[in-house]
Amino acid sequence: MNIGLDVMGGDFAPLEAIKGVRRFFENHPDTAVHLTLVGDTEKVQPHLSLVDTWKDKYTFVHATQIIEMDEHPTKAFKEKPDSSIAVGFGLLARKKIDAFIGAGNTGAMLVGAMYSVKTIEGVLRPTIASFVPRENGSFNLLLDVGINADCKPEHLVQFAQLGTMYMERVMGMSRPRVSLLNIGEEEGKGNILAQATYPMLQQATHINFIGNTEGRDIFLDKADIFVCEGFVGNIILKMAESVYHIFKEQRGVQDDFLDQFNYELYGGTPILGINAAVMIGHGISSALAFENMIVNVERIVQTELISAMQQEFTS
Amino acid sequence: MNIGLDVMGGDFAPLEAIKGVRRFFENHPDTAVHLTLVGDTEKVQPHLSLVDTWKDKYTFVHATQIIEMDEHPTKAFKEKPDSSIAVGFGLLARKKIDAFIGAGNTGAMLVGAMYSVKTIEGVLRPTIASFVPRENGSFNLLLDVGINADCKPEHLVQFAQLGTMYMERVMGMSRPRVSLLNIGEEEGKGNILAQATYPMLQQATHINFIGNTEGRDIFLDKADIFVCEGFVGNIILKMAESVYHIFKEQRGVQDDFLDQFNYELYGGTPILGINAAVMIGHGISSALAFENMIVNVERIVQTELISAMQQEFTS
Repeated sequence: MNIGLDVMGGDFAPLEAIKGVRRFFENHPDTAVHLTLVGDTEKVQPHLSLVDTWKDKYTFVHATQIIEMDEHPTKAFKEKPDSSIAVGFGLLARKKIDAFIGAGNTGAMLVGAMYSVKTIEGVLRPTIASFVPRENGSFNLLLDVGINADCKPEHLVQFAQLGTMYMERVMGMSRPRVSLLNIGEEEGKGNILAQATYPMLQQATHINFIGNTEGRDIFLDKADIFVCEGFVGNIILKMAESVYHIFKEQRGVQDDFLDQFNYELYGGTPILGINAAVMIGHGISSALAFENMIVNVERIVQTELISAMQQEFTS
Repeated sequence: MNIGLDVMGGDFAPLEAIKGVRRFFENHPDTAVHLTLVGDTEKVQPHLSLVDTWKDKYTFVHATQIIEMDEHPTKAFKEKPDSSIAVGFGLLARKKIDAFIGAGNTGAMLVGAMYSVKTIEGVLRPTIASFVPRENGSFNLLLDVGINADCKPEHLVQFAQLGTMYMERVMGMSRPRVSLLNIGEEEGKGNILAQATYPMLQQATHINFIGNTEGRDIFLDKADIFVCEGFVGNIILKMAESVYHIFKEQRGVQDDFLDQFNYELYGGTPILGINAAVMIGHGISSALAFENMIVNVERIVQTELISAMQQEFTS
């Protein structure tokens, strides 16, 4: 398996990305994963000594350009064909790599994914999903978390199906409980979207719909999958991150469950519904986050999630 | 000033309500507030000894019926004209009391408010607002938190205006900073509603609009007022309550800021945009919550918020 990594992506690139690569190889000495690191040789070279021990386990691919965090995604992706993001997606589209990971400009990562590997036939809109910590030690899946601000019921139903396949195959969960994130427990509660989506989720195939959940349930063992519009999911995700930032990083609160709010544990956010395994990292991705992204994306490839999704939606 | 209190409302009624009355009188010995307690004599009588010391400072009004927490609001309000909620709103409509507080069936409290004291002329939709704790020790105002699941831009603009008047008059804040809760910082970001609302907030009168905020800003000193649809606000509010429940109540985390997440400190949620001061309490309202609701509603009446709103919107 060959996993591509944009080492120029993220606020602390390329150092943290390279350190993440080292962590991955250190902690997985017998891995069958070969990494393809994409970046600007001049900027990356000084740090490559960190991974010298594993030089037969990675390939370096030079990319002369970088898409900065504040650039317009579509414009930058088109105007910088030799950026690390564009080069990475080029490799992915040509199947030179099996998956691609990047913590750079999120929009450009999305544009690259749509433009190069494209949406799975039958999927209305790809989605991004994020884990949120669950009080009993496990994780819940929240989706969409930001790329689909406005949704229709049929989008939410597909998010439920995509999330279910992800939890089943990649996380090894049996019949994950899907819930509609709402502002009341009973059917009929909520905004127009939620009211219209509820009966469609009840009738949808291949999901285990258990009904509505509320804001208070997000960290509990009440459902495994929380489906919502990207506008709502993104606010929840950033709020959860701020809980960690304020209580752990600023106030030094020591608590096992609080530690689970650390985004680094999840590594990044998979794009679900496209024809390849792509993981988007947080801008502030650390070595640990990069390591976990490699681990997660490896699992997506191993479990053949993409071909399963292609079969599910195309048929 | 005469403040009405539904002592039958809330999961621990009437005991916690009566204890809240005692707390209020104990902690405010020189208060000019006269309380009108509405409830079922038979159920309340056993507890009235708790407030015997202040028997000239309250009046008890008998109501034979109770609207239960799970009853249909509109139906229950109409079919139980002698319920404590209906009797309370009757007193409010006839100006026998200056304000009304209840921690019972939220929907019935809303129906009662709309039906009896009615929406201020010019206000499109009344809204409910809630405080959220701010990391530096103060509070932010979040609205709407649940009665307006779906909104149009003009609703959000009015929420901004109503919230501004509340923060200015009742909380004594000068030019509170209004923000649009969104999923990106720049103008043009967000869902269709946010994109349409942004320019209208820029042009709105009597508010100090500072732009977009995100989920990570809700607990920070970045804005004083966060405007959003009730669907979003309700999920945020319940999520914030669950942070307190999980970390404080279940896990025993000791932290000053976490303590500020205790809903009891805010007491309840004012309905803004109606022709009287009405405060809705949490179902699990404790004595402390009832005390704080009385204090807050007293401030609303003292600062003549309602007549100021009537002038603002009617003119």
